[in-house]
Amino acid sequence: MDGAAGNGRLTAQPTRLRQWLPGLPILEWGRAYDRETLTGDLVAAVIVTIMLIPQSLAYALLAGLPPEVGLYASVAPLVIYAVLGSSRVLAVGPVAVVSLMTAAAIGQFAEAGSPAYWTAAITLAFISGLMLLAMGLLRLGFLANFLSHPVISGFISASALIITASQIKTLMGVKAEGHNLVELLRALLGQLPNIHWLTLAMGLAATAFLLWVRRGLKPLLMRWGVPVRLADTMAKAGPVAAIAATTSFTWALGWHEQGVRIVGTVPQGLPPLTLPAWDMALWRELAAPALLISVVGFVESVSVGQTLAARRRQRLMPDQELVALGASNVSAALTGGFPVTGGFARSVVNFDAGARTPAAGVFTAMGIMLASLLLTPALYYLPQATLAATIIVAVLSLVDVGILKRTWTYSKADFAAVAVTLLATLALGVEQGLVAGVTVSLALYLLRTSRPHIAKVGLVPGTQSFRNVLRHHVLVSPRLVSLRVDESLYFANARVLEDCVNDAVAQQPGLRHVVLQCSAINAIDASALESLEAIAQRLREAGIALHLSEVKGPVMDRLRDTAFMRDLTGKVYLTHYQAIAELTPEVKINALGQ
Amino acid sequence: MDGAAGNGRLTAQPTRLRQWLPGLPILEWGRAYDRETLTGDLVAAVIVTIMLIPQSLAYALLAGLPPEVGLYASVAPLVIYAVLGSSRVLAVGPVAVVSLMTAAAIGQFAEAGSPAYWTAAITLAFISGLMLLAMGLLRLGFLANFLSHPVISGFISASALIITASQIKTLMGVKAEGHNLVELLRALLGQLPNIHWLTLAMGLAATAFLLWVRRGLKPLLMRWGVPVRLADTMAKAGPVAAIAATTSFTWALGWHEQGVRIVGTVPQGLPPLTLPAWDMALWRELAAPALLISVVGFVESVSVGQTLAARRRQRLMPDQELVALGASNVSAALTGGFPVTGGFARSVVNFDAGARTPAAGVFTAMGIMLASLLLTPALYYLPQATLAATIIVAVLSLVDVGILKRTWTYSKADFAAVAVTLLATLALGVEQGLVAGVTVSLALYLLRTSRPHIAKVGLVPGTQSFRNVLRHHVLVSPRLVSLRVDESLYFANARVLEDCVNDAVAQQPGLRHVVLQCSAINAIDASALESLEAIAQRLREAGIALHLSEVKGPVMDRLRDTAFMRDLTGKVYLTHYQAIAELTPEVKINALGQ
Repeated sequence: MDGAAGNGRLTAQPTRLRQWLPGLPILEWGRAYDRETLTGDLVAAVIVTIMLIPQSLAYALLAGLPPEVGLYASVAPLVIYAVLGSSRVLAVGPVAVVSLMTAAAIGQFAEAGSPAYWTAAITLAFISGLMLLAMGLLRLGFLANFLSHPVISGFISASALIITASQIKTLMGVKAEGHNLVELLRALLGQLPNIHWLTLAMGLAATAFLLWVRRGLKPLLMRWGVPVRLADTMAKAGPVAAIAATTSFTWALGWHEQGVRIVGTVPQGLPPLTLPAWDMALWRELAAPALLISVVGFVESVSVGQTLAARRRQRLMPDQELVALGASNVSAALTGGFPVTGGFARSVVNFDAGARTPAAGVFTAMGIMLASLLLTPALYYLPQATLAATIIVAVLSLVDVGILKRTWTYSKADFAAVAVTLLATLALGVEQGLVAGVTVSLALYLLRTSRPHIAKVGLVPGTQSFRNVLRHHVLVSPRLVSLRVDESLYFANARVLEDCVNDAVAQQPGLRHVVLQCSAINAIDASALESLEAIAQRLREAGIALHLSEVKGPVMDRLRDTAFMRDLTGKVYLTHYQAIAELTPEVKINALGQ
Repeated sequence: MDGAAGNGRLTAQPTRLRQWLPGLPILEWGRAYDRETLTGDLVAAVIVTIMLIPQSLAYALLAGLPPEVGLYASVAPLVIYAVLGSSRVLAVGPVAVVSLMTAAAIGQFAEAGSPAYWTAAITLAFISGLMLLAMGLLRLGFLANFLSHPVISGFISASALIITASQIKTLMGVKAEGHNLVELLRALLGQLPNIHWLTLAMGLAATAFLLWVRRGLKPLLMRWGVPVRLADTMAKAGPVAAIAATTSFTWALGWHEQGVRIVGTVPQGLPPLTLPAWDMALWRELAAPALLISVVGFVESVSVGQTLAARRRQRLMPDQELVALGASNVSAALTGGFPVTGGFARSVVNFDAGARTPAAGVFTAMGIMLASLLLTPALYYLPQATLAATIIVAVLSLVDVGILKRTWTYSKADFAAVAVTLLATLALGVEQGLVAGVTVSLALYLLRTSRPHIAKVGLVPGTQSFRNVLRHHVLVSPRLVSLRVDESLYFANARVLEDCVNDAVAQQPGLRHVVLQCSAINAIDASALESLEAIAQRLREAGIALHLSEVKGPVMDRLRDTAFMRDLTGKVYLTHYQAIAELTPEVKINALGQ
């Protein structure tokens, strides 16, 4: 396969045209398809379909769209992903966070539920799909690496909290709008007097039931002697049971006449053929949100895909994933859907249920198609609060409160990135939160590299190694100072080295040699080269020689033809030990004597 | 002094309140002031004053302001800088690039030459001064390090070209406006039929004269036996001679009646007391340009200040400079001036002329004050084209065409930063060019660190050193792979290491040990820690032990309490040689045998 054209090569390889074309993974797994694989895929598809029906309806409502749009978005994208995707088990379709981002992106252009709103959602999926395709063809998958784990974690947790808050209004049977937690909570507080108690009671009961199904049902069934596999499947069917029960009650007791909001008429039939709006003004406005949705969707999808691929020693190809997700989103736009991606929970279920190949996705698509042909009349009396309960229970598991504590212990910079992302997302909204998180994490990284750790090092007795004089018992000479710069030299930190050498010179009056141990210097840019020239000149004027040691190959290649190297008063040593042995033999003798 | 609170410390020191307060360098040099110092300062002040009078008029016109504003901006700021500045020889006042940026910033709010325009310039100086003060008090001087040399060089060169183009209209005796080179050249071409030939002839003559004075006068005078010092001063007085000559001709021959534009009435008197406009809408609009002007002014000032300080083994304190420049700009705003900073050419002249202390600046301010009290009537007949010639000759020396070739040879990334800054500034304007340059240089740096160089290393025979197997003849074992990661591990490159270890494992079937040589890893963030955990787990499942060697102190401190270290299957070695000697004794024996 050509997917190995990533960044992780030990050695560079010539670029071939083949490398730049996306692959067709289906050709690989399709050849080896047999009856056993078919069984695994079919069982997994049944379970995922049962899980996906309520989720797709719920996420469509979360995105502000009619429920059937969720079903539409769960057919074509799954088939397209099966053909192009490099993950064997990723389950593509509507997911919570991307649905929330869709609502945030198009809420400003049209009234939720209106035809214009649906068209905007279709257009958003189309633009996002094109962007993903372009990124894949240009091999830009690596850009997703700039979203750090702390930022993703903070963003997903905050999004889950916003989604929960937005669903509480449905549980309460009231209307309340808001793009962030602050607005939502204020709106909910204002609606407290209008609570529809029957809706709330039913919604809370459904929530409690679903939570219990998640935690308590499987152990209980197993204690009753139900086989693990079946117990697992029954636990996954919890939402379907909740839907069946509340729908039946509503139909039988006429709760909808008492004000319980129901899903109502869901059009029966196959996904329609649709086109995005060819409105350049709208495209311009949707470009930025579409980019954020693309990146978040890609990162969510690749994270779960890589985790699951590693468990079966398979490999995910990020650039191929971009192409597959891009094509899936374009297909969603052409069949009345909205932005989709690989979902976390659903993919894990697919994996655990024994899916072997992406064919499971095709079977799931067929299941959803059947449902949208036959099942929709049965959804008429389905209370919206039940779907809200489904969403709440699903997203609450995404909230990772531990990340704050873990990063606080490990690194304050990572903690700051989590905290800023979390707070900005909660207080301002999903788009602002994501941008703030990325900005802060990059700024903190730049800030750290701009203040490098520079250690004065000495010889560890009995070895040829050098360590920090402040941390280890080492040998030094008053005539020589060894500085180890723990960072690549570039414009933001070049002046710091100048200051540091000046200080070292001022501290040691008898100094004759400065040796820079360059083992941690991975690059020297033009600004840093000018600083090195300035340092060399100042030392030369003070009668002190400047030497380098352990300069890495790529750095040396670059330095070779520069004025700095031509004018260097000292030498370049392969190892720091050679430098010390030659320049201060007394240290070498001391070291051997110990 | 407290200025040593910079970043360049070998060891951290406790923060004292004193460190956070700006200093008063005048207390230091003022105490040792004597007659000899006075003489040096006075001579330098006379020469700088002669140079500053035409420059201040010219730069005020460049900024779109009445010429006397240039004189106003050359009094109070010099005195304030003398009290607060940490450079002994920096000559503060109006400079070309900042004047150009001032025109670009306020041109959109008012008609050049109108009272509202002047007020906007005053307000801009005030805001910029407050920003510099705040950055100084918050010790944010290091932020200027994020402007790389290539970006500064490209920006200054492009600005000089724009300034030259903007002055050609004055030489041609026509009107032409534009914020970038493209607009200016188009406007100039349109004005070709309207050239005022007398103005052009006189302007070109003045330009040629000034160029000759710069290059040829000093050698000529010295050949005639004039002492070096005097020859130098006479060469510096070139612009004054050009002004005297063209003013006399204009007055005597009545050129102004033939259409040669003259400076006209320059109000006689001391700088007025003024206040910025307290218009919040204007402040908001000016905030971004003021920030850019502050940063550019600070960088220009600090660059020349540091160069000159190093020549006399003095030290510049960047945060103190921020305070001094901030207060200078506020004082400019309160006395009818516009944004000022330390000028490159003028400071070098001050230094060469023998200035010893900032008192030279106070004497210069007195000289300018005398000039604005007495000399202004003499400036009535001064042709504007002469001032344009002064500017052109001054800024052309700032154009550094060599930087393109130098960076192209040394590093394509640096070349790209220069080229983008240069082209964006020329094609779009100064503000856009600077922002584009900083963005591109940071993005290229991030891109580089996101694709780290990872080398498979082996033992150099006869030493305890390890080098790249592809570049050196080294010893390796089929049971062990040593990987040296040439970059700190952080979110943008964490996944690359995962891929790389996977590849190495796939290439060596008999592998039992993976040793990561961490000598170039200066930090591991939370995202990279998760990747390391993933790598360790995958290796464990494959029966391969993961070891670390040469982990730096700060990195080890952080890793110590993590789950990664608790679950590590291998060991952490102080040196990579110890790891190899213990894990593959056969390699050690081979190495000693050679």
